Amino acid sequence: MKRILVIGAAGMIGRKLVARLKKDGAGELLQQDVVPFEGGIVSDLSSPGEAEKLLAKRPELIFHLAAVVSGEAEADFEKGYRVNLDGTRYLFEAIRKANYKPKVVFTSSIAVFGAPFPDAIGDEFLNAPLTSYGTQKAISELLLSDYSRRGFFDGIGIRLPTICVRPGKPNKAASGFFSGILREPLAGQEAILPVADTVRHWFASPRAAVEFLIHASKLDTEKLGARRNLSMPGIAATIAEEIEALRRVAGEQAVRLIKRVPDPAIMRIVDGWPRNFDARRALELGFRPDPSFDDIIRYHIADEPSKS
Amino acid sequence: MKRILVIGAAGMIGRKLVARLKKDGAGELLQQDVVPFEGGIVSDLSSPGEAEKLLAKRPELIFHLAAVVSGEAEADFEKGYRVNLDGTRYLFEAIRKANYKPKVVFTSSIAVFGAPFPDAIGDEFLNAPLTSYGTQKAISELLLSDYSRRGFFDGIGIRLPTICVRPGKPNKAASGFFSGILREPLAGQEAILPVADTVRHWFASPRAAVEFLIHASKLDTEKLGARRNLSMPGIAATIAEEIEALRRVAGEQAVRLIKRVPDPAIMRIVDGWPRNFDARRALELGFRPDPSFDDIIRYHIADEPSKS
Repeated sequence: MKRILVIGAAGMIGRKLVARLKKDGAGELLQQDVVPFEGGIVSDLSSPGEAEKLLAKRPELIFHLAAVVSGEAEADFEKGYRVNLDGTRYLFEAIRKANYKPKVVFTSSIAVFGAPFPDAIGDEFLNAPLTSYGTQKAISELLLSDYSRRGFFDGIGIRLPTICVRPGKPNKAASGFFSGILREPLAGQEAILPVADTVRHWFASPRAAVEFLIHASKLDTEKLGARRNLSMPGIAATIAEEIEALRRVAGEQAVRLIKRVPDPAIMRIVDGWPRNFDARRALELGFRPDPSFDDIIRYHIADEPSKS
Repeated sequence: MKRILVIGAAGMIGRKLVARLKKDGAGELLQQDVVPFEGGIVSDLSSPGEAEKLLAKRPELIFHLAAVVSGEAEADFEKGYRVNLDGTRYLFEAIRKANYKPKVVFTSSIAVFGAPFPDAIGDEFLNAPLTSYGTQKAISELLLSDYSRRGFFDGIGIRLPTICVRPGKPNKAASGFFSGILREPLAGQEAILPVADTVRHWFASPRAAVEFLIHASKLDTEKLGARRNLSMPGIAATIAEEIEALRRVAGEQAVRLIKRVPDPAIMRIVDGWPRNFDARRALELGFRPDPSFDDIIRYHIADEPSKS
């Protein structure tokens, strides 16, 4: 039976991925996170020696989702580099030294890109991140490509759009309001909108994100050539379009719960973020975006019934 | 008096840069290399704690030229990452912790790019290196940008074209033949040409490289914005054009010393290398290429009289 290691399994995407892998009967699951959780291996990937332990059973497929989020990596420089860079490098080094060749699916981020941008970011646009988080992801992508090229493992990096609607409590990601202005009103609560209605961004639902991971794990990486990292297809939507979708799905009373409180600090951060992509390679390789922003909201209502 | 630290001062470019800085009376020079040399500090930047020692006098300007070359970084995976990545990161971390803000000029390489390429590589083309050396340089560039953005130092990375004519003995760089087919014939010796005459590549003389470094050290980095790494302007020339220039400058008897011995392994490596650039940003910022390939050869004859 195939062994599958999920690193960062207690995170939002990690939990949904594990549920999906279980449902599919995909294999024997090894779940790791730094946060204690039921059925999981609790360890800190950024401590030397821990990655080796995770490979003791030689999992053939490894999902590496563990990361400190953007806001925290910006606030705590050393922690961001330790977890997002050193942790990833320890994992890759442990695989190299274990001397077998698993498939590795790594979750990167559109934060590897930084302004100024073209109208749509294509597959050949440079990585010039404007955050430490984006820098750490871009470096991890480079390592993944080089380790794959050298034959140490068979890697693929997928740059997730901003996940929307992110369930649960807000986390430290500066992008939190993109979900907040939908999630909170759907639960009958007020939400703060700190940026202008004209701000455009790039989104995927948690369902789409899990599909990307599953599809990446099954993809024949021969098709990738040497470029192992891909921008995933998302939906480009403005804040105004988000709000219109909310109105269509949940009505005017939901929209009324959005409070506009402009925040210059968040505006400045968001100004450096990608707005739109031409994710041609990923589309050609069979990755699929959400059908519409309305569906993104409907998925949230269906998947998180207690919160809406 | 300004203190200037040159890391990798015993290398080919390092020695020429130091000579130029001395001639200009640029400041108090601190010279470091891992190789023992006269007047130099001998230390291994990739050993923890060594970078800190180099900063004891708080040099206001730091040139970081130290690197394991491409062939060696490919042959010795661990050494390449230790010297080219860890060494650079130790330096950047030491500066961050020393809590002052020097100017840092880092020599990167066009090896950060990998095929397939457009006709000319522009300033927004992605870094997708096809060697471990290129990967290590690309990662160092990302770190340099992030440390500069965070205000830990004032960094600029310059991607040097392939240096031609490289004086002295061949080193382990796979690009060695580009110089060899000129340098050896100019010294009355046979040279091996392992690739086709149609191969195009991107060149700068040692003189141009030193000028790039000096210009970078004086450049107001405000003009760079967040993108701190620049492809330097070079001369795009095919092997045939190199040979024609040799014929014009040194005559038919020099050209006759070039022996064609195709090497599929070197051909394969070179196929993944950049051929031509549109180095617009660097040109706008005042960096200047060599006037012509003929001049590249003439500079070599003038600067290395004992060898030609």
